[in-house]
Amino acid sequence: MKRYYFDWAATAIPDLSLDFSQIPFGNPSSKHKEGCDAAEALERARMRCAAVLELPPSTLYFTSGGTESNCIPLFSYLFRKGEGRIIISAGEHSSIYENLNTFKKIGKITGIIPIDFCGRVTTETLMKSIKKSNDIKFTAITAVNNEIGTVNDIAALYSALKSSCPSAHFHCDAVQAAGKIRLNLADWGIDSASISAHKLGGPRGIGLLYLKEPIEVMFSGGGQERKIRPGTENVAGALALASCLENHCLPEKVEEEALKARLRLKILLDGLKKIDRSKLIPEREFDDEKFSPYIVQAAFHDIPGEVMVRALDDLGFAVSTGSACTSSSAQRPVLAAMGIEDKLQLEGIRISQGWSTSSEEIHLLLDAVNEVLKFL
Amino acid sequence: MKRYYFDWAATAIPDLSLDFSQIPFGNPSSKHKEGCDAAEALERARMRCAAVLELPPSTLYFTSGGTESNCIPLFSYLFRKGEGRIIISAGEHSSIYENLNTFKKIGKITGIIPIDFCGRVTTETLMKSIKKSNDIKFTAITAVNNEIGTVNDIAALYSALKSSCPSAHFHCDAVQAAGKIRLNLADWGIDSASISAHKLGGPRGIGLLYLKEPIEVMFSGGGQERKIRPGTENVAGALALASCLENHCLPEKVEEEALKARLRLKILLDGLKKIDRSKLIPEREFDDEKFSPYIVQAAFHDIPGEVMVRALDDLGFAVSTGSACTSSSAQRPVLAAMGIEDKLQLEGIRISQGWSTSSEEIHLLLDAVNEVLKFL
Repeated sequence: MKRYYFDWAATAIPDLSLDFSQIPFGNPSSKHKEGCDAAEALERARMRCAAVLELPPSTLYFTSGGTESNCIPLFSYLFRKGEGRIIISAGEHSSIYENLNTFKKIGKITGIIPIDFCGRVTTETLMKSIKKSNDIKFTAITAVNNEIGTVNDIAALYSALKSSCPSAHFHCDAVQAAGKIRLNLADWGIDSASISAHKLGGPRGIGLLYLKEPIEVMFSGGGQERKIRPGTENVAGALALASCLENHCLPEKVEEEALKARLRLKILLDGLKKIDRSKLIPEREFDDEKFSPYIVQAAFHDIPGEVMVRALDDLGFAVSTGSACTSSSAQRPVLAAMGIEDKLQLEGIRISQGWSTSSEEIHLLLDAVNEVLKFL
Repeated sequence: MKRYYFDWAATAIPDLSLDFSQIPFGNPSSKHKEGCDAAEALERARMRCAAVLELPPSTLYFTSGGTESNCIPLFSYLFRKGEGRIIISAGEHSSIYENLNTFKKIGKITGIIPIDFCGRVTTETLMKSIKKSNDIKFTAITAVNNEIGTVNDIAALYSALKSSCPSAHFHCDAVQAAGKIRLNLADWGIDSASISAHKLGGPRGIGLLYLKEPIEVMFSGGGQERKIRPGTENVAGALALASCLENHCLPEKVEEEALKARLRLKILLDGLKKIDRSKLIPEREFDDEKFSPYIVQAAFHDIPGEVMVRALDDLGFAVSTGSACTSSSAQRPVLAAMGIEDKLQLEGIRISQGWSTSSEEIHLLLDAVNEVLKFL
């Protein structure tokens, strides 16, 4: 059976081939030719990433993926001088959200910044969260929510934070933003950001961490990545990530693809709006730039999301409920934080498209949804 | 110029090709067919690893590499109930050793178990370290030292620890042991062990963590790897690691290759012993099973190790001073802990061979060393 993939937010369809025989195999820390060749390749990869992201190469560190890129700055908070709070938005990915429990166990004070009914953090709610106490040491707010597609105004949020807490660290999970919206990490002003290759058509096991300034980190080791991320460097992964960024993250490419994605989104939203039992979470228009055109959350009356996922899967269509990383849980914390009622939360499915999704596939997905609705 | 590679302890020459098109691309946490195919592939990889290591698949967790496999149990120590000490051997890799500073900063009590003049931890020194206080919570002792090749008797050390501190966690860094000596992780009794793919001819960015029992971990996230290691699973890496273990870690293969390596080692040691200015660190025989046949540390009178590395490199031979992971430091902490005098420490070079090293290459290396000695 032909398959149609609408779960790009979980992982992209790979579009990169890696010829390992062309990649220097040496350990970049070794001082001989094999090591130097590998170190040079690694630095070339870093420079290519830096060129796409318009950042100094010295601010970019290769990690094992998005989760680690989120955790390195998050856990650096443990070493920040003096007492102070960590606050994160209610819309954060589990790789940030779930770590709050660790901090609580260690005796650190944590807090949640509420999101609005669109999944957004507003500067007003951020300021309210800050005012509860102005001793914020660390904040994490995602650029694009992975379940709803909500785009946060990171530059404005950063300014708001710094106006009250100049020494606080602002981390931005940019995993769902890279390649989907314009990334302006330098302009946004933020202290750190995370990117993952496998959301960009690349392999697993490689991610990028942007750090405006070096930080004190939790894990030490062989001093690789200028002591920010220990472990023998994944040169092949770094080169692959550079290609991912070049393929999908150059500003003009991002805008060209987003335009096409919005046209496909129009077909999807128009189709869903024609279905009586469907409900968008939240209501939105195809051209609303406050949402990524690549992610849509929708619910179908009286059909649990898990049932819809299975029914569509049987017809050849891959969609998900929420984040793949919370798929083992029946709860939908992001939807709950948006104030979505319990029943509707459980009816939600995420439809996420990618660069190679076609309009034809969108039409077929709508047909499949209508087919399922005949029987359920 | 033809190159001759003698730095297998830093990274092995890759002998694995990965056909990404044959690997399910889905996110193993996704509930649709693409996700299920990926999850199945991941579990197949785990079962293949388990079969080679003669362990239950449920005790094996995929990580991003040896460093992370060492850090996960090490940092779990922070959550171990009650106060207590962490002690590690002076021969540990930097991915363990360097983290002591982090623990000290957090206010944890740490200690070093001395190594003898061969780089070995004896049960006597371990017992002495324990007796200083019997509140040990965590111990890390490497199976094969990465600079000297010393093999520790892990089973005996584990028994000694448990006889005094039954609730202490015993972690074994097996990165340099896998494929080089017989691994008997279950028989050794230890609580955890680490393995890295790139030391076994595989790619970077994938490692294995053995945990006899699940532990409470530092980093949380999407719940992958049964909550031991968050982050989207590297399915391609896991399959590659399974192939690495099958290629190099089956008991009969390990013994067959070690026998061949010992014969090549004999040529190397005989050759070095004929060189007046050379000194083995420590003195050893080719058939001494207390040392891995794959790693030799040797010094050349009045020639700094770094100079010898560069001179041999110019002739086409890749050797190293110490661990690649400490190559940016002029210090040789393992040699210092062995009681080697300062000057000799700095003259040490590590020659490490692999499965595809030939006797011919060993002869050529000896010729090259003699060539260098004519001019230095």
